[in-house]
Amino acid sequence: MPYALEQLDTPFVAVDVDIVEDNLRRMQQQAEAAGLKLRPHTKTHKQPGLAQRQVELGAHGITVAKLDEAEVMLKAGLTDILIAYPLVGRAKAHRLALLMTRGLEPTISLDSLEALKTVALAGQLAGRSVNVLAEVDTGFHRCGLNGSALVELALTIHGTPGVRFGGLMSFAGHISGHRDVDRITRLIDEEDGMMHDLVRQITAHHVPVDDVSVGGTILSHHLQRLRTATEVRPGIYIFNDMGIVTAHAATIDQCAARVWATIVSQPEAHRLVLDSGSKMLSTDGPIDGCYGHIVEHPDWRIVRLSEEHAVVELPPNAAPAAIGSLVSIIPNHICTVMNLQNTVTAVRQGSVVASWPIMARGGTQ
Amino acid sequence: MPYALEQLDTPFVAVDVDIVEDNLRRMQQQAEAAGLKLRPHTKTHKQPGLAQRQVELGAHGITVAKLDEAEVMLKAGLTDILIAYPLVGRAKAHRLALLMTRGLEPTISLDSLEALKTVALAGQLAGRSVNVLAEVDTGFHRCGLNGSALVELALTIHGTPGVRFGGLMSFAGHISGHRDVDRITRLIDEEDGMMHDLVRQITAHHVPVDDVSVGGTILSHHLQRLRTATEVRPGIYIFNDMGIVTAHAATIDQCAARVWATIVSQPEAHRLVLDSGSKMLSTDGPIDGCYGHIVEHPDWRIVRLSEEHAVVELPPNAAPAAIGSLVSIIPNHICTVMNLQNTVTAVRQGSVVASWPIMARGGTQ
Repeated sequence: MPYALEQLDTPFVAVDVDIVEDNLRRMQQQAEAAGLKLRPHTKTHKQPGLAQRQVELGAHGITVAKLDEAEVMLKAGLTDILIAYPLVGRAKAHRLALLMTRGLEPTISLDSLEALKTVALAGQLAGRSVNVLAEVDTGFHRCGLNGSALVELALTIHGTPGVRFGGLMSFAGHISGHRDVDRITRLIDEEDGMMHDLVRQITAHHVPVDDVSVGGTILSHHLQRLRTATEVRPGIYIFNDMGIVTAHAATIDQCAARVWATIVSQPEAHRLVLDSGSKMLSTDGPIDGCYGHIVEHPDWRIVRLSEEHAVVELPPNAAPAAIGSLVSIIPNHICTVMNLQNTVTAVRQGSVVASWPIMARGGTQ
Repeated sequence: MPYALEQLDTPFVAVDVDIVEDNLRRMQQQAEAAGLKLRPHTKTHKQPGLAQRQVELGAHGITVAKLDEAEVMLKAGLTDILIAYPLVGRAKAHRLALLMTRGLEPTISLDSLEALKTVALAGQLAGRSVNVLAEVDTGFHRCGLNGSALVELALTIHGTPGVRFGGLMSFAGHISGHRDVDRITRLIDEEDGMMHDLVRQITAHHVPVDDVSVGGTILSHHLQRLRTATEVRPGIYIFNDMGIVTAHAATIDQCAARVWATIVSQPEAHRLVLDSGSKMLSTDGPIDGCYGHIVEHPDWRIVRLSEEHAVVELPPNAAPAAIGSLVSIIPNHICTVMNLQNTVTAVRQGSVVASWPIMARGGTQ
């Protein structure tokens, strides 16, 4: 007999499986319409079952952030995996080689000779070449190179035994936080232009650039603008969150994951406390000074988080709140929320259908 | 054969067991010297083994944040537990009653009639009274009442069947973030004055106030100032962190837990990337714009975190960094760091002695 999710003890994360399916299909269609391969970043959901569904619907392999995540996905039979992170050191080389002997067909992104040496060692240990993408910094200023340094790295990769130069990778993280669609599309055009120039410079050295892999859910809703990319790696699109809604790349109704919480205290008329603290919502953000969007009360503001407390400011004329009643919250950044959970609750039309273990959570090495 | 922690794959959390032991003994002595019971908050470490050690050294029971944590601690034989959180609703009442039938001797703090009703129901179901503390807001403005509302709540608790009025509880969270010791001690004196007044008002109604329980590691380093408290509930003191160091309540050498990370990228001379992102350090803080203190390079600044990347700004004349080399980081807020880990590595004099599972992590309900 089905039971309503309101019967569960709070706090918990509920994922609407119908919205997930819609989000997955829509992005797959967008990628196909733009003639791009879709390689979803699975660090958002951290669940092999959902990764398998992404591949069933047409994804060309998956993306992970770390070897721990690759290992979980490989155990579930997913072999075509981009590890979008510079692996550095002998321990990482040996671990990568071991996964390759178990069937992993890895692509690795990197931006240094040290990481290249690590990956080449793994290839040598495993007895076959590793596909390598040179990471491009298109404005996020995290990892990645650009200009002549990037071209030089690409040529070095091309000339290194034990690896195969597969192309370029970027992540347009600097688009996040912008709300103005004109500004967002201008940043995407700039990124596309940079990638175009780099491909031109590298191919001028008679080195082929097979793949140009670009990342981010917001960018993935503007695929028609991309001239150079061959592959797109959105992650958050499976669930969406307030970061994506703020960038006009999803609606509230397209957000599949919510944190359910109980009002546990109301010390003053205009302040109450929910039992969804930073251990549920994470302190990522805030957006407009708030740590998530309360669906039932859009004018309530989550202004402060402790580990187990969300402090909410009510508007001046708010109706009295009932201690003990439930609310649901769309998080600012769903990836970090998923990483905090041991399990999440899958629901369909308000009824509980499954408990999903977050098998790749905490995977950091 | 012992092995050095530098042989482990990064990132990981290492806990120095000798510093832990020193921190535990020092706080126990401080509490005893001040004539106060020590009831450590175990949400910092989330490990029954460390809770048992705290009790062995003289702690009068422990504190937890949620029923999940109480359950983990009860399974390890810890029965005298303060759940410092308002439990609201029938599910919580039934769970509390179940733990009582398994031997839990709970004390619960609360600030509403709804939470009181929940706890009274648990007492009724379990067939014995639950000890209840009225939560006082001394300035943190999270949960808790003050003035006549608090006194009225205390009297109502006293008159409610199924519960026993045990006294008052506060948490001086508003002290965190201050650096000026004069300002800190003034806030502590104010808190003590408030508790003193409330006790006077409640006892004027011929209702005894057996316990006055105050919280926080910073406050616990100024115990000689407290006239009214009977019990103190520090949590972070077992490890310490940059929040405590900033408040002059611990030194860097007294910080027992560090995140070890590898330099995985250096795209520019003055920017590098560590593999300890928000999944290791959490986004709590920042302190002076930084997400943790790099022990080996105090002038390097962790200015930005992604999930797997810590972006570090180097000073203008910094020596070249070596990609692949290790650094260790004292986090801003160690409680949230512990909650992110599945295990941490216990070390003594730089050698690995154990892997500790964070058994109460993710416990949120």
